[in-house]
Amino acid sequence: MGEFELIHRHFTRPVRRAALGVGDDCALLSPAPGMQLAISSDMLLEGRHFLPGTDPERLGHKALAVNLSDLAACGARPLAFTLALALPQAHEAWLAAFARGLFALADAHGCELIGGDTTRGPLNICITVFGELPRGDALLRSGARAGDDLWVSGAPGQARLALGALRGEWPLPSAVLAAVRARLERPTPRVALGLELRGLATSAIDVSDGLLGDLVHVLNASQVGATIAADKTSHLIAANTCQQSPDAVFELKTLALSEAQRQRCVLAGGDDYELVFTTPPARLDAVHAAGARSRTRVTRIGRIDAAPGLRLVDGGGQPLQGDFASFDHFA
Amino acid sequence: MGEFELIHRHFTRPVRRAALGVGDDCALLSPAPGMQLAISSDMLLEGRHFLPGTDPERLGHKALAVNLSDLAACGARPLAFTLALALPQAHEAWLAAFARGLFALADAHGCELIGGDTTRGPLNICITVFGELPRGDALLRSGARAGDDLWVSGAPGQARLALGALRGEWPLPSAVLAAVRARLERPTPRVALGLELRGLATSAIDVSDGLLGDLVHVLNASQVGATIAADKTSHLIAANTCQQSPDAVFELKTLALSEAQRQRCVLAGGDDYELVFTTPPARLDAVHAAGARSRTRVTRIGRIDAAPGLRLVDGGGQPLQGDFASFDHFA
Repeated sequence: MGEFELIHRHFTRPVRRAALGVGDDCALLSPAPGMQLAISSDMLLEGRHFLPGTDPERLGHKALAVNLSDLAACGARPLAFTLALALPQAHEAWLAAFARGLFALADAHGCELIGGDTTRGPLNICITVFGELPRGDALLRSGARAGDDLWVSGAPGQARLALGALRGEWPLPSAVLAAVRARLERPTPRVALGLELRGLATSAIDVSDGLLGDLVHVLNASQVGATIAADKTSHLIAANTCQQSPDAVFELKTLALSEAQRQRCVLAGGDDYELVFTTPPARLDAVHAAGARSRTRVTRIGRIDAAPGLRLVDGGGQPLQGDFASFDHFA
Repeated sequence: MGEFELIHRHFTRPVRRAALGVGDDCALLSPAPGMQLAISSDMLLEGRHFLPGTDPERLGHKALAVNLSDLAACGARPLAFTLALALPQAHEAWLAAFARGLFALADAHGCELIGGDTTRGPLNICITVFGELPRGDALLRSGARAGDDLWVSGAPGQARLALGALRGEWPLPSAVLAAVRARLERPTPRVALGLELRGLATSAIDVSDGLLGDLVHVLNASQVGATIAADKTSHLIAANTCQQSPDAVFELKTLALSEAQRQRCVLAGGDDYELVFTTPPARLDAVHAAGARSRTRVTRIGRIDAAPGLRLVDGGGQPLQGDFASFDHFA
């Protein structure tokens, strides 16, 4: 079987929501009246965004997940995506596993493959994703206001914890490694939470480069500052990300990491694809209800200030010092 | 200046038609009532889709042009695009020239950059383009009917003529090389013609892999065949592509190519980004008028048949033999 037939076999599927899918010069999307399209592109390169030899099924999942995470951060409902793929060679087993991971996540979100491109070259996956949302409802980085509560979803730091173990920076018990490695390689885009946050959050962003580094984009766009309570964050690395399962994934004491290392994973580790968002303090109960409905842990970690800058404080409100440079993709 | 600042400086521009452009997790597009979006993605890789060392300004043009060509083939009006760019290093002079070529073409079509991604890696340019058109008006590959006239725009073969000269397959006078090299490196997407063909053409496709090879996609999708009059095509390699300038770019006799080589460039050469389209024979005058209004040469080269398959005939209608395999990107 030729290369084109292999790719056709694994990636051509009928569409239900798009007006036209794979197979013509263009795909066609018809947003419903009053809806607008949210669009995001991400390029994933072997050795830069994922380790060589990454399981192709997990890679198919992750390539779409990081794009769905951008839709989640805007509060958009996934609709469709295009896939441009550069491959060193077309191995059927690899393609089949990649497609399996990709479409399992796509189907879970009703998100259709509507077009794309394939070429021979160094492994590179470029996905452009389309979501829809009512006109004017998008969650933007620019809406945070002084006095807002600052929240994070799930268990930030687990992806960095896995990466450090894979790199030999620290040991991890094998059960813990398996759990956090899945968080690194099969992240959960917080689409359900993003939809719940429409009309509730004043701003949102997804954590791809590190919690603090990405928060700074919100602070800059909103022209505000923030104070983070460090005691509210350091334990999150051991949290179960699901609201309905309050048990920790593992005991903090099983980690051979210092408090500072753990804190660094949570605040500066990247690749978690959690949402950082802000809400008016009067909506605290509504945020917990949104977390419960979307089965996603939400933790209040600080507040938005009128004064510019980012402050870390301990349990007593005293300033902490720390160098939490933004996570730069495997650099 | 850091890499991010360099890229920000060259690629962040305000948007006028999109609801939200570069700088948030997603861009936002709001199609007008009754309009749908046409979407296409193309990935261009150094060494595969363009020669190493290609002038970055021409490359910026070409990367967008091949995507606009897909919109042209659907009859869509360009609206916006995303750009994902993998770069070995961020050279300011290269980025500035690339952006100049990209935005000159984008501005000529009112097409805005609304988002994207940049990463370090082997040079790879992935553009996803968005056009709009009235619901149901898209030109598809599947609409050709027996009896339709078969047309091609412009001067197919010139890109292959240039490539052959650059590869040393044949010599070209320097003035001819300059003219056809511009056709290879700065192709003109036939957007204006595509818009004129809405409601007129029964099918359309753009020629990226070769006239015959791409025509076969139309024949398969439409379940028809075609007969091409070879005497109507072999001279096109020397044609001026503009309807208002009937003079040839160069004299055929200046080419040190055999008739068969010329014909092979026209029928099997790729990278021309001309449109191949079909129309009912009663609309012949309307097609010529569409060509005139869009200032694009249009040439009737054959007809659609009920019988499957592709037949080449000479001026007397006698079958020609020939091996016109589809152009495979620089392979």
